[in-house]
Amino acid sequence: MSDKYDGGVDGEISRRGIMLVLSSPSGAGKSTIARHMLEGFDSLELSVSVTTRAKRGSEIDGRHYSFISEREFERLRDSDALLEWAKVHGNYYGSPRDPVEKALGEGRDMLFDIDWQGGLQLIEKARADVVSVFILPPSMEELQDRLKRRAEDSAEAIQQRLANAAEEIPHWREYDYIVVNNDLDKAFHKIESIMIAETLRRDRRMQGLVEFEKNLL
Amino acid sequence: MSDKYDGGVDGEISRRGIMLVLSSPSGAGKSTIARHMLEGFDSLELSVSVTTRAKRGSEIDGRHYSFISEREFERLRDSDALLEWAKVHGNYYGSPRDPVEKALGEGRDMLFDIDWQGGLQLIEKARADVVSVFILPPSMEELQDRLKRRAEDSAEAIQQRLANAAEEIPHWREYDYIVVNNDLDKAFHKIESIMIAETLRRDRRMQGLVEFEKNLL
Repeated sequence: MSDKYDGGVDGEISRRGIMLVLSSPSGAGKSTIARHMLEGFDSLELSVSVTTRAKRGSEIDGRHYSFISEREFERLRDSDALLEWAKVHGNYYGSPRDPVEKALGEGRDMLFDIDWQGGLQLIEKARADVVSVFILPPSMEELQDRLKRRAEDSAEAIQQRLANAAEEIPHWREYDYIVVNNDLDKAFHKIESIMIAETLRRDRRMQGLVEFEKNLL
Repeated sequence: MSDKYDGGVDGEISRRGIMLVLSSPSGAGKSTIARHMLEGFDSLELSVSVTTRAKRGSEIDGRHYSFISEREFERLRDSDALLEWAKVHGNYYGSPRDPVEKALGEGRDMLFDIDWQGGLQLIEKARADVVSVFILPPSMEELQDRLKRRAEDSAEAIQQRLANAAEEIPHWREYDYIVVNNDLDKAFHKIESIMIAETLRRDRRMQGLVEFEKNLL
């Protein structure tokens, strides 16, 4: 694994930030990989969702989620202040637009650890800024083993997750990159490579490159 | 620097090969980086040009170039058997199509160490298969220092190369990725990341992914 990455700014060339959208069926390793990416990639930070559900024991307001009232949520949603939102089990969740816009303009990258429904909304709203990665399990047996090892769910809940996974998997078709998570380090290295490559694209830093060329010549 | 790369096949997922087009003004490090890429990237091989010029002392026919007659060159060119070609100082140079088609179909990648004129022909002929990288020097002073250190050219020839470089540099606009070569290891790592990322793109391996999904579900 390489050293913590400097954000690919080539020292001199400024660029717009990237929205890294990570999705996968549950158990395929998305959240572990997301945590590694946040630790390993200097310019990357997590997009913190707003939610109307109650805070759980160990959660920190503003870090895991921003906990807000239903009235506040509806105000944000109706003023187009959310990049995506969903209602799940009676609770609202959404990604606020302002912190993302600010980060991208400053050349910082935002990570979205999100299901495919949310991923699709982000892709539709911000195509040019989004780099989307769908993580696949190497096999359904391996996915089942991981869900069992995680020991968070009952046997019934695991069966439900596997059935959901089978419905979620075909949505790899809507993503830019597909990574099979055979091995956590290798999967992390691949997604790190995707981020490094994307920061080097001409079309993400035309202005910075024109300025660099002006100084060069 | 990471271990020799396996070609990003994720174990199971087949993909089409990539044409990696590397261009830069002379002295910016293209050929050194090309050599590192060939050593470090398992699936990558060099596209060997055909030429009508005379073989030089240490050159090996079929490795550095394939040395052919003018008549044979014209036959290849006129039967559309070359992906790109040019006449330089009275000699013909070209990239034969057949070995490239064969390699890509077998999931092997081809490296083109080529000037921007040749690069553009490749981009026009094979847009979907090409990944193009333009390497820029960090400064003209650094470029001049490298040309002097290389000690291959007279002071006059170096001045000519710098003048040519100033005309070549603006062609970064036609490439997918731009890498500033401040540091050879870092530049190599960036181009390696570009290759890894490109092998993970959905659109380069739709067929392989559909087959993988079929086995999965």
